[in-house]
Amino acid sequence: MNNYNDYVKHSKKITDVNMSMAVLGWDQETKMPKNGSRFRAQQLSTLAEISHELSTNKEYGNLLNNLNSDDSLNSDQRRNISLSLKAFNKSKKYKSEFIIEESKLVSNAFQKWRLAKEKNDFSIFESSLTKLVDLRIKECEILGYENHPYDALLNQYEPGLTTNDVDKIFSNVKEFLVPFIKRISKSNKINDSFYYQKYSHNKQWDFGIELLKKMEYNFDSGRQDLSAHPFSTHFSPEDTRVTTRVDEDNLSEMIWSCIHEGGHALYEQGILSENYGLPLGETISLGIHESQSRLWENNVGRSLEFWKYNYESLKSIFPNQLSDVTVDDFYKAANNVKPSLIRTNADELTYHLHVLIRYEIEKALIEGKIMVKDLPEIWNLKYNEYLGVEVPSDALGVLQDIHWSHGNFGYFPTYTIGSFYAAQFFNQAKIENPNLLKEIEDGNNKNLLNWLRKNIHNNGKRLDADKLCEKISGEKLNFKYFKEYVIEKYSKIYSL
Amino acid sequence: MNNYNDYVKHSKKITDVNMSMAVLGWDQETKMPKNGSRFRAQQLSTLAEISHELSTNKEYGNLLNNLNSDDSLNSDQRRNISLSLKAFNKSKKYKSEFIIEESKLVSNAFQKWRLAKEKNDFSIFESSLTKLVDLRIKECEILGYENHPYDALLNQYEPGLTTNDVDKIFSNVKEFLVPFIKRISKSNKINDSFYYQKYSHNKQWDFGIELLKKMEYNFDSGRQDLSAHPFSTHFSPEDTRVTTRVDEDNLSEMIWSCIHEGGHALYEQGILSENYGLPLGETISLGIHESQSRLWENNVGRSLEFWKYNYESLKSIFPNQLSDVTVDDFYKAANNVKPSLIRTNADELTYHLHVLIRYEIEKALIEGKIMVKDLPEIWNLKYNEYLGVEVPSDALGVLQDIHWSHGNFGYFPTYTIGSFYAAQFFNQAKIENPNLLKEIEDGNNKNLLNWLRKNIHNNGKRLDADKLCEKISGEKLNFKYFKEYVIEKYSKIYSL
Repeated sequence: MNNYNDYVKHSKKITDVNMSMAVLGWDQETKMPKNGSRFRAQQLSTLAEISHELSTNKEYGNLLNNLNSDDSLNSDQRRNISLSLKAFNKSKKYKSEFIIEESKLVSNAFQKWRLAKEKNDFSIFESSLTKLVDLRIKECEILGYENHPYDALLNQYEPGLTTNDVDKIFSNVKEFLVPFIKRISKSNKINDSFYYQKYSHNKQWDFGIELLKKMEYNFDSGRQDLSAHPFSTHFSPEDTRVTTRVDEDNLSEMIWSCIHEGGHALYEQGILSENYGLPLGETISLGIHESQSRLWENNVGRSLEFWKYNYESLKSIFPNQLSDVTVDDFYKAANNVKPSLIRTNADELTYHLHVLIRYEIEKALIEGKIMVKDLPEIWNLKYNEYLGVEVPSDALGVLQDIHWSHGNFGYFPTYTIGSFYAAQFFNQAKIENPNLLKEIEDGNNKNLLNWLRKNIHNNGKRLDADKLCEKISGEKLNFKYFKEYVIEKYSKIYSL
Repeated sequence: MNNYNDYVKHSKKITDVNMSMAVLGWDQETKMPKNGSRFRAQQLSTLAEISHELSTNKEYGNLLNNLNSDDSLNSDQRRNISLSLKAFNKSKKYKSEFIIEESKLVSNAFQKWRLAKEKNDFSIFESSLTKLVDLRIKECEILGYENHPYDALLNQYEPGLTTNDVDKIFSNVKEFLVPFIKRISKSNKINDSFYYQKYSHNKQWDFGIELLKKMEYNFDSGRQDLSAHPFSTHFSPEDTRVTTRVDEDNLSEMIWSCIHEGGHALYEQGILSENYGLPLGETISLGIHESQSRLWENNVGRSLEFWKYNYESLKSIFPNQLSDVTVDDFYKAANNVKPSLIRTNADELTYHLHVLIRYEIEKALIEGKIMVKDLPEIWNLKYNEYLGVEVPSDALGVLQDIHWSHGNFGYFPTYTIGSFYAAQFFNQAKIENPNLLKEIEDGNNKNLLNWLRKNIHNNGKRLDADKLCEKISGEKLNFKYFKEYVIEKYSKIYSL
């Protein structure tokens, strides 16, 4: 390996292996028969090992270091090299033993978590989770950090984001959202009971597909399937898939999970194929990814304009269930703010309190200030404090999320960051296209998608998240856009 | 790497990569959206490269050579080492350049073949096919052979089988089958027109699933999907999948493709999981694999006993279409012998003439006795000679099969070998269990499957094909079993 082309070739090889893992993962979650799991885990672990070998190849590292000081490269090439070198240096920090230990711990923890949730017994999961937390504490030291060990974990998902940043963000959340939600809870209740009638699986499914098409999701470069937990994945910009789940007793589940995952998938479909295998062919961060799903799910998909266009179609599919429901009723119910137990079912305001609770717990765990064995108690106290709800069981409490069982710490804050980016981006899109809401009302999402393509998707990792935000909106992430969006929208809905 | 455990670890790693390729291949044929093909081809090619690197790893080769003379190993371990060393030595013969050239040629040839078939124009495919034939001629020299270059190709699919063996087999075919089929063609015609009514897709699908369950196919370790060409594949004995296709205007298509692929899958489900990643965890050869699919498809699935049990259920699903059809009518129609154009739709007798034609052509191509450009003419002449049919177009003639476009030469004869093994094995199973046909008539296939498990499936590659056949039936592959089966069955059906 001695030139830029050799770098491209090797980088594509790593990507091919990673994308193959994604195919195996997709299959595992959507199609794999029950008994397939044992050898699938082994196959995924082997591919992960190969990917790590390729990513830490010495010759590749030398090439990256040489190219990093090669002035003949253009700016895109330099960006690719710089990011690949960063990834190489990070991969090098991990010894194979760590990767193997992690893979074993996660595999075990996942099984224990599932059982614990099923049996509603946190103690089954406790020892595995303790080991995972210890591993992450060790990992913070391996990766290094400037101010706070949790920074190292945040950086895995949101490069550049610090614990200090997240603290500031959540102090805004607390300062504004907590009293705002209290005001809402004192005003008139919204009736959303019509969601919880019988809605046939197949009709819901067809409507979900229709929604994805309306969003300009390209089914020639993707597909939708069912899975226990909705997710999106991609194997190239030309094969970017979504999954959903359908609850016949709850219409909202399918609708907003379709739109949410569709938003993720549109980001991946907007990556330029010519950059496949290179950093410029990758999305920026989980926070920016979440900004795309949340923008579609909330700013678009929970707007009155969106439903002014789409509600008639939904009503024609379910005429009996929705006979007495106006589009305004439907819109309000889609934005019903109500403190609840489960994060994934939360409205777009209380959602961030769910994230806040997880963030505070993760930080304290990594700091060593709390113990895993005390988590159920801590969890329940915080749910009472921030959301005013009593947690009736660990299954509906501390065991509800899959993340910790997968060893993902530092992930949750990106959900909140993403929503705030979404508000800032959507605000900017409206400024640049004053007709935007009218277009959405007319069922035309093309200009919005083109705006996202041009400003975000097509650029891949050309800019870091904060630089991208500045370029698009003239300033760094600013909570005020989310705050303004919330005040405007919910003041009307709740006549505050 | 320095001991047997290191060997097991490395061999499993190679298998994990190969099984990952199988997952990507399955997805490609069943689920992948249209635009996914470009990067999928690249991902598969990267995995193939990695598999080849691992398979030809020098340290691994040294270990195999050392272990090959290690007397402390038990017989199973020695068998594994011996076969892995053979595979290693074969892989070593290929330079990376050959693998890359082959992958490019095949990718190109497949596209050209599809277009040529669509446009019914052989000339579109001619140049690609010529290059592939030249590559295979080169490959015969790379691999080496004793008597005939085509031996080298046969050996890829059926280790130990020679051109001389195949010549003998087909001389039996010609001597017995050609006049026998002529006698049939002069006797009373069978009415199979009821197959070609409207049979709804979903009902056919459900019946196919029912058939697979009756065969004891385990859906916890597999699944069925739709694909353009039915196939079976496996990612471990615990995840072994089948596909089928459903033609609403032809009931027979789905029924016997389900049973055929089910037969393949039962073989893979019967491999012992504890041997995953080792030769003892692999099936023996394509011929033995085909013996399993053909045994279920023909010896069981086209028997009167099988339909005496299953026909009532089919009739209850399609009462109108089958109201006047007795089980005897149905059985006879399932065994209607009628020379035709398309191999995959042929009955179990004329089928072997289709294979014979392909074998003669392949052999002559490898010998350099005929030219690719003359194939359409040669094809049509042979179809006239052996089957007495006029080929109306290249699409229905020389372009019908996918095999050559994939660069597979030496593959077709295994179909015929498989049928003959099937007859010999089934005969033996009946000798050892005189109640077998009665059990099938009672819908009980458990003992048959157990017999196959014990005598074939569970043993993996413990024995070569010819040794296995001797162990099971006391003699090598003998055409007389197929001949006796055919005479007994068809003399009754056609009152010969």
